[in-house]
Amino acid sequence: MSVLEPLPPGSTIGILGGGQLGKMLAIAAAQLGFKTLVWTDRSDDPALDVATEIFVAPYTDLESVNTFMQNGPRVITYEFENIPVDTTFYLNSSISVHPNPSALSVIQDRLLERRFLTSLNIPVSPYIEVNNFNDVERAVNTVGLPAVLKTRRFGYDGKGQVIVENSLGEAEAAWRDIGEIPSIFEKKINFSYEASVIAARGLDGKVSSYDLVRNVHCDHILAKSYVPAGLEPNFTEYLTKTAEKILNQFNYIGVLAVEFFINTDNGFQFYVNEIAPRVHNSGHWTLDACYTSQFEQHIRAITGWPLGSTHRHSNVIMENLLGESVHEWKYIAQQPMTALHIYGKTKAVSGRKMGHMTRLYPTSLTSPIDSTK
Amino acid sequence: MSVLEPLPPGSTIGILGGGQLGKMLAIAAAQLGFKTLVWTDRSDDPALDVATEIFVAPYTDLESVNTFMQNGPRVITYEFENIPVDTTFYLNSSISVHPNPSALSVIQDRLLERRFLTSLNIPVSPYIEVNNFNDVERAVNTVGLPAVLKTRRFGYDGKGQVIVENSLGEAEAAWRDIGEIPSIFEKKINFSYEASVIAARGLDGKVSSYDLVRNVHCDHILAKSYVPAGLEPNFTEYLTKTAEKILNQFNYIGVLAVEFFINTDNGFQFYVNEIAPRVHNSGHWTLDACYTSQFEQHIRAITGWPLGSTHRHSNVIMENLLGESVHEWKYIAQQPMTALHIYGKTKAVSGRKMGHMTRLYPTSLTSPIDSTK
Repeated sequence: MSVLEPLPPGSTIGILGGGQLGKMLAIAAAQLGFKTLVWTDRSDDPALDVATEIFVAPYTDLESVNTFMQNGPRVITYEFENIPVDTTFYLNSSISVHPNPSALSVIQDRLLERRFLTSLNIPVSPYIEVNNFNDVERAVNTVGLPAVLKTRRFGYDGKGQVIVENSLGEAEAAWRDIGEIPSIFEKKINFSYEASVIAARGLDGKVSSYDLVRNVHCDHILAKSYVPAGLEPNFTEYLTKTAEKILNQFNYIGVLAVEFFINTDNGFQFYVNEIAPRVHNSGHWTLDACYTSQFEQHIRAITGWPLGSTHRHSNVIMENLLGESVHEWKYIAQQPMTALHIYGKTKAVSGRKMGHMTRLYPTSLTSPIDSTK
Repeated sequence: MSVLEPLPPGSTIGILGGGQLGKMLAIAAAQLGFKTLVWTDRSDDPALDVATEIFVAPYTDLESVNTFMQNGPRVITYEFENIPVDTTFYLNSSISVHPNPSALSVIQDRLLERRFLTSLNIPVSPYIEVNNFNDVERAVNTVGLPAVLKTRRFGYDGKGQVIVENSLGEAEAAWRDIGEIPSIFEKKINFSYEASVIAARGLDGKVSSYDLVRNVHCDHILAKSYVPAGLEPNFTEYLTKTAEKILNQFNYIGVLAVEFFINTDNGFQFYVNEIAPRVHNSGHWTLDACYTSQFEQHIRAITGWPLGSTHRHSNVIMENLLGESVHEWKYIAQQPMTALHIYGKTKAVSGRKMGHMTRLYPTSLTSPIDSTK
């Protein structure tokens, strides 16, 4: 597929992963006239409710990979970053995978990700790698406390992380807790709040970002997102440019999210907390408040379509429905100017993302963040 | 299912018909966490791209009807009015069908529909029924010319209609043209424009309408819809109340569309042209300009959820992509503030509805209808 030939409607898009992000990607693809082929290793995943074709198999099995390709996807993407990168490289040798597997392999590894960011002069929290027990003491002495020990791979929503507040002994226990696997020891940052940028890069190299988002977490899981975020315009622009620098450096195609820790104690300081090579929970508000959602934007990018308008017609508060709070759907459905999205997961396990709601406000009203904090 | 117990997410909704309306209903259902079971008699229908489960069989076969019910739908709806009404009555004896089959049977028949409207003192064009060759001359003498001969059943988008301009001979030819089947002979109305109301009624009996739509047709097929429609508020209210009267009289559950012919030559006159017992092409703009789309509204109504907000955040022009005009998708995709919907039909036959686009404008701008006429 060349840059000049966008993929026509009617073509099939392969999606690895069947969670709510895969579901919302599949819906966006269908609205543009595409068919979807969703590959998941779990037969009760939400995306299977709307996929045109379903493929249930382990992601690592070579025969499965070949069968998946024979099912006709013209382009392939993924909805979560922990799919085996080898599978994406193998697929990409025959059918374009976006975002590219090289970017994925860097982002999958917290150490490589931090090295990548540092090479671009993008600030991250001071860190050091920890590969064995002896590294732990050196890490405490170099980075200082409090700190966070994080596994290099397979972390999200606070998984694979242990906070070390006070002592070397605590750090050594943390090392055992995370399973004595390659990790980084990272200074725990004091931050005033978290902000994120949802940005996209098209096959033509154009980049486009949504308005900055202010996020509130609860037990390491995103609870609420506010837009507008209420930052000064020049800081907003700086964070947006940072995300766009990352997109360009990766030669990235698709939507990417960058989470920033913002500290306003002494002027304006920021650190990149995490990059997500995919559509992102803190971009769900775009479904209801923008002319093009992050999901449609991702589909447009990977199919070689021009990026859509990221303009926002309303102010918003997005709120996740975690665990049993999804059972409040009856009451939420009665609220005016509120869009409700339920993912269709069967078990409302505590902390599990079961759905989200977006409250919309005219842009003429005071920023919702001011009135609800 | 009682009025007080809305159907919970995870339940399956049965949809009869697999066209673009079925596709958009299935997507709206999925966004609220429902599964869908789409019944169609054509294996390449657009709704099959997003249905959770697919059922391909003729609508009239009793064994098929029973198998469909055994597939677990908790409530059943339909996306077009020409499904066999006997099938809906049979289904409704076991599983609720909304809108109710009695309303459907009236709306399917142009004669019964006009009698129903007349009984509510809602104006329709003067008409007379025509059942045999001898009725034709009487009809011409009673109703006058020009007129339109319309079959009682199975008409949409100008199908089953012949215009009679000048003579009895022409009327007799028209009778042969439409196959000598029960029809009505209706005075051809001079109208300034067509307007439509998209309204919904919930299981709790509450009614809610979207803003009035102004429609422009081309060869009897909807070409464009404009909102706001630019009517005086008291006329708008009158048309909206008329639609709501129809909903209540039918004890109707779901979304219904009423098309009006408006004549402004001598003050304000209106006639109901047609009722559609379903989501409607002239309501597609609600997908992109409202907090709740007509598709979500219909799903909310038939599942016993509270109706959503019909508030509109933008002004809009909706334009159908008929036949080969869908091939312009590459250029439409580049237009700012424009939402593109492609249905995924395989053959771009002339006049076939292949997709639509919605141009959005801030409500602060002059009504788009003024600037584009």
